Amino acid sequence: MSGNTFGTLFAVTNFGESHGPAIGCVIDGCPPGMPLSEADIQADLDRRRPGTSRHVTQRNEPDAVEILSGVYEGKTTGTPIALLIRNTDQRSKDYSNIAESFRPGHADYTYWHKYGIRDPRGGGRSSARLTAPTVAAGAVAKKWLAQQYGAQFRACMTQLGELAIPFESWEHVRSNPFFAPVADVQQYEDYMDALRKAGDSCGARIRVQATGVPVGLGEPLYDKLDADIAHAMMGLNAVKGVEIGAGFASVAHRGTMHGDSMTPQGFRTNNAGGVLGGISTGQDLEVSIAIKPTSSIISPRESIDVHGNSTEVITKGRHDPCVGIRAAPIAEALLALVVMDHALRHRAQCGDVVPPVPPIQASFL
Amino acid sequence: MSGNTFGTLFAVTNFGESHGPAIGCVIDGCPPGMPLSEADIQADLDRRRPGTSRHVTQRNEPDAVEILSGVYEGKTTGTPIALLIRNTDQRSKDYSNIAESFRPGHADYTYWHKYGIRDPRGGGRSSARLTAPTVAAGAVAKKWLAQQYGAQFRACMTQLGELAIPFESWEHVRSNPFFAPVADVQQYEDYMDALRKAGDSCGARIRVQATGVPVGLGEPLYDKLDADIAHAMMGLNAVKGVEIGAGFASVAHRGTMHGDSMTPQGFRTNNAGGVLGGISTGQDLEVSIAIKPTSSIISPRESIDVHGNSTEVITKGRHDPCVGIRAAPIAEALLALVVMDHALRHRAQCGDVVPPVPPIQASFL
Amino acid sequence: MSGNTFGTLFAVTNFGESHGPAIGCVIDGCPPGMPLSEADIQADLDRRRPGTSRHVTQRNEPDAVEILSGVYEGKTTGTPIALLIRNTDQRSKDYSNIAESFRPGHADYTYWHKYGIRDPRGGGRSSARLTAPTVAAGAVAKKWLAQQYGAQFRACMTQLGELAIPFESWEHVRSNPFFAPVADVQQYEDYMDALRKAGDSCGARIRVQATGVPVGLGEPLYDKLDADIAHAMMGLNAVKGVEIGAGFASVAHRGTMHGDSMTPQGFRTNNAGGVLGGISTGQDLEVSIAIKPTSSIISPRESIDVHGNSTEVITKGRHDPCVGIRAAPIAEALLALVVMDHALRHRAQCGDVVPPVPPIQASFL
Amino acid sequence: MSGNTFGTLFAVTNFGESHGPAIGCVIDGCPPGMPLSEADIQADLDRRRPGTSRHVTQRNEPDAVEILSGVYEGKTTGTPIALLIRNTDQRSKDYSNIAESFRPGHADYTYWHKYGIRDPRGGGRSSARLTAPTVAAGAVAKKWLAQQYGAQFRACMTQLGELAIPFESWEHVRSNPFFAPVADVQQYEDYMDALRKAGDSCGARIRVQATGVPVGLGEPLYDKLDADIAHAMMGLNAVKGVEIGAGFASVAHRGTMHGDSMTPQGFRTNNAGGVLGGISTGQDLEVSIAIKPTSSIISPRESIDVHGNSTEVITKGRHDPCVGIRAAPIAEALLALVVMDHALRHRAQCGDVVPPVPPIQASFL
Repeated sequence: MSGNTFGTLFAVTNFGESHGPAIGCVIDGCPPGMPLSEADIQADLDRRRPGTSRHVTQRNEPDAVEILSGVYEGKTTGTPIALLIRNTDQRSKDYSNIAESFRPGHADYTYWHKYGIRDPRGGGRSSARLTAPTVAAGAVAKKWLAQQYGAQFRACMTQLGELAIPFESWEHVRSNPFFAPVADVQQYEDYMDALRKAGDSCGARIRVQATGVPVGLGEPLYDKLDADIAHAMMGLNAVKGVEIGAGFASVAHRGTMHGDSMTPQGFRTNNAGGVLGGISTGQDLEVSIAIKPTSSIISPRESIDVHGNSTEVITKGRHDPCVGIRAAPIAEALLALVVMDHALRHRAQCGDVVPPVPPIQASFL
Repeated sequence: MSGNTFGTLFAVTNFGESHGPAIGCVIDGCPPGMPLSEADIQADLDRRRPGTSRHVTQRNEPDAVEILSGVYEGKTTGTPIALLIRNTDQRSKDYSNIAESFRPGHADYTYWHKYGIRDPRGGGRSSARLTAPTVAAGAVAKKWLAQQYGAQFRACMTQLGELAIPFESWEHVRSNPFFAPVADVQQYEDYMDALRKAGDSCGARIRVQATGVPVGLGEPLYDKLDADIAHAMMGLNAVKGVEIGAGFASVAHRGTMHGDSMTPQGFRTNNAGGVLGGISTGQDLEVSIAIKPTSSIISPRESIDVHGNSTEVITKGRHDPCVGIRAAPIAEALLALVVMDHALRHRAQCGDVVPPVPPIQASFL
Repeated sequence: MSGNTFGTLFAVTNFGESHGPAIGCVIDGCPPGMPLSEADIQADLDRRRPGTSRHVTQRNEPDAVEILSGVYEGKTTGTPIALLIRNTDQRSKDYSNIAESFRPGHADYTYWHKYGIRDPRGGGRSSARLTAPTVAAGAVAKKWLAQQYGAQFRACMTQLGELAIPFESWEHVRSNPFFAPVADVQQYEDYMDALRKAGDSCGARIRVQATGVPVGLGEPLYDKLDADIAHAMMGLNAVKGVEIGAGFASVAHRGTMHGDSMTPQGFRTNNAGGVLGGISTGQDLEVSIAIKPTSSIISPRESIDVHGNSTEVITKGRHDPCVGIRAAPIAEALLALVVMDHALRHRAQCGDVVPPVPPIQASFL
Repeated sequence: MSGNTFGTLFAVTNFGESHGPAIGCVIDGCPPGMPLSEADIQADLDRRRPGTSRHVTQRNEPDAVEILSGVYEGKTTGTPIALLIRNTDQRSKDYSNIAESFRPGHADYTYWHKYGIRDPRGGGRSSARLTAPTVAAGAVAKKWLAQQYGAQFRACMTQLGELAIPFESWEHVRSNPFFAPVADVQQYEDYMDALRKAGDSCGARIRVQATGVPVGLGEPLYDKLDADIAHAMMGLNAVKGVEIGAGFASVAHRGTMHGDSMTPQGFRTNNAGGVLGGISTGQDLEVSIAIKPTSSIISPRESIDVHGNSTEVITKGRHDPCVGIRAAPIAEALLALVVMDHALRHRAQCGDVVPPVPPIQASFL
């Protein structure tokens, strides 16, 4: 109930603080018999890792994962899989000046009032560093879903600050530090350089997609697949909006065009984003999220301290000028975790998923 | 795990189908000793009720609620509160022609493939009629939150199809059938009349607000207050997008302006929408949702039947040409249920909420 | 979290009070496509029903169940099954004299202090009448388990007060009001008549058995099958002890005899009671429970009132002089609910149960 | 749902295998602001530790615990507390001969059939070694309950094999390796020496007691305090029976004596064992558990292998000839975890526990 477990049947319990000795998670409910090694997980962690370009935080963390349990002779046993990542590059002294002040846009103020105590080192528990165990758990889910259904998860940036990023191809996403689906990212490099020089930060929009998800996943009434996707995405640090399929554009749609027509060869469109009545249609899951600008900036901000007095806050330390840049692999992982959980929930009540049924997939929008 | 229970500590288990004998819910976890009668609940049900204007479905349901348990001599006892609403105006024959076809944009296709069986009468379990028990439970939560913290919940329409609705005052919301915050709704009346005549439907955008929510509600890491709000809202029938605070506009913001400054007199702005790090700040909770156009329209739609053959679907029966019109009281109820659950979760771990702390509230944006 | 839901994947949420308008439950998670009607449930309710012999309470309740949802054209749809039982023979005046006193051995004292309010009519929520919805839900579980695995559930009385009841045959159980596995129950009739005349009550021991449960159900580490059986049984009103297999006799056993030997033809014994390491072995589940004497007796008892003053309590009204007499069908239902829940939990993580494996079953002990 | 999390609001997720790299747990929901260090936890771990007398396994494990998260400057922060214990004295070769055979009385057979894969090293996940993290988490719960209510938890052995152990005083329990409440344990030393020489094992009965538990903890209907105690205790390795208060002796009791009379000065007796209607009375919680003889014995046992063929199993390795000997600190921890969870559940729904009310405690039975 204290909010650190994600999922119900594929349950990921996350622990750790940004500058504590270690972070990690325990995955309970993984099906037995699946080959699994640290290498399966490390690949995704490396995509999220800090320090990989000049546009992200320069904190140097290898994020090397150790599997502590749940795997025997290279296969999952069905018992809890504990994953451990030691923190190695903490510099707590960077944060000492803000221990008694509340950084605007940060969780400082709310943690302080909720718990009456706050670990100020690097944001403590509220740091985006805690997405690493989520990514690690997501890698396990992805592997099972790929093996079981051929499902695949991917994400790309579709807007950086006020710059919309056109969609060219998924091919480009892994070739640039922005996870942008375009060949040429020079303008985004320049944009970020200018922003960093100005001591400022910006937001981003990320598109997340799953292919190969079978029809039938998701639960009425409240735990709809899209509801749980929204929960996952809005729970990601700095996210302020979530859309499924046509999203907010649906408001101005007409019923005569919005509802995706069906033919024996498949859906004609995918305004639904792969979900109808909260249950997957077999089409691609299409999700879009809005990420706010990083709150940790070196420009001075007006604030108060724990005694209620006026103060000015400058956040030193090492930070991402656009947290959205590293959000793509995290959003993928979250989507995989949601689908994984619902795959097991479906199996519990309805038995194994049947082979995919005819209606093939339309392209998005 | 089958998705019909909302919340954890204030847990609402919803049951029923659109055309079955009854719908209702069981609320488990309500604090004892609170005065409660059917009248407290009926008021909100009446705001959601069908048949109250020509712009909504003409199905005539009194939606009279009966309290079956959990109340003794007018007070809650701490034991489950079961609420029963008998269905009285089912006309199942209206739907017989669609039992073997899948209506585009509806849950027909997904329910059929998930369960291998489907109750086609009025959409069965996937009908928006099932929001009535949610509204009833929300009324109980609202009463407790008002009494405990002075918290209030309200919602209004901010866009109807492509028409943006300016915000004039909360005063107007209860004076028109659109829950619009404006004095003059003639253009929306005309718009809906034209739409209905065209046999079409449209979407809507709804703003939901909570005032008086104390600082400190919400759980890291995954069950953030905003994450659970997103879960609740996206789980509402036809919702395709959810925003907290500045929402998607955050993407183009700069860190130097987005993070809400704090002064001894309060926050200067509320881009956060009342949530920082997943925990309430004490400012107003500000949520915005996108509702797609009703899928049940009388215009013919291209589809397939259960055998995979081409067919054409015309949805007769009685339907809302814009489901968003009746969404306001439902969205309020959902927000209240989320806040209620987190109030109890907070109390479990941290003890009773302390009196509100200084930082007063800025107006939104 | 407020304790009124049994199970996780086959989740039964129970509501109602002894003298309120109705009692019932909502079953969430029932697999779809199973034939189900009121008659399937009524049979078990009738076995538990009051007023069927002079040895049980004379309250006259037909306990007629109504299915409110989750069934369409005679089959379960996978959506919540709500079951309603109206109370018809409440006589609240019988209890008015005890509203301010605490009956020894009853929940009066603890409910009062927990909630600060108590429904005194017939014990309110703490009445054994609330086992009726449990029995109803158990009937649904039994039907699925019988159909899926051929599993069967039965229970009998093995001790009445200080009288041990020998085991002759399961055949006899349904032929006498005691659920005793013997042909001649005259001595138990006489025993109960004397007890009733003396204004006293006695305890009972019940044996519960499940056959046909497949190997592999149950979860390490904490939610072992036997742990959840113990939870279910100890949660039944008046139960003070639970044994699995050899139970307390195990203490004096030697390892060289206790561990059930295995041969290619099966286990030689069943000291384990059908559970090893918390997981079913495929042998019969064997459970034994101790039920304390009814606390509602007409003999005067020393007690206090809500103000802490001395008082004397005589419990009038209509009560069972041995609540254990009607416990057999309830204990069966509870065992079925536990097995059902674990069947679905198993299916979620490991897929469908494989056909039963060789080791056949030894008889108990 | 996979059974490795204990509790709901004070939720302990346990991981690890007997011979894997590490074991541990994550505690989610601990109230913030409580002083906590490794030393607080180590004391209880040392009481459970192997190798402390010749009557227990000679495996040499320091069981040194490391706090990985959730504590800042010596105080709990309200975020997850991860506890890590490295395994140091694994000797997997001892077990290689049993990887393909099923040891009678062990979980080998059931794990194999449940998961299709089994970690045979030292019993893998089914080893009693996994009680160490439970003890560690229990130490945290004990500390909070002591500080909050003055609650205390203790356990002692009341029967060793066929030898009943009289109760002399709690003082003696920590002075002998049996946790026996007697001054002179020579006869138990002799008994165990003979048993070990014979290559056999025996069972034990343990009494567990909590004092200072406030009135009002426990939830109707299914999650009664005693139901959750039974769940906890029956989930402990090798436990075959659980009693609350008078337990199985209740069967032969009369209502006129069993129900504990109340006076303004307190309860006259404690047949209830501190629980009425599933809710604590404020009296001592009294629990008794039956532990079967260790299944790992060096005497040859008749069994089968994974192919269904006859075989003979001799369990070498290092084992406890009576697992009950080390059960006392584990049972204490489990009782503390149950009470802790219910304390938070109570606080969620009903607010903080009121100061203890008059009725003082009678001694047990």
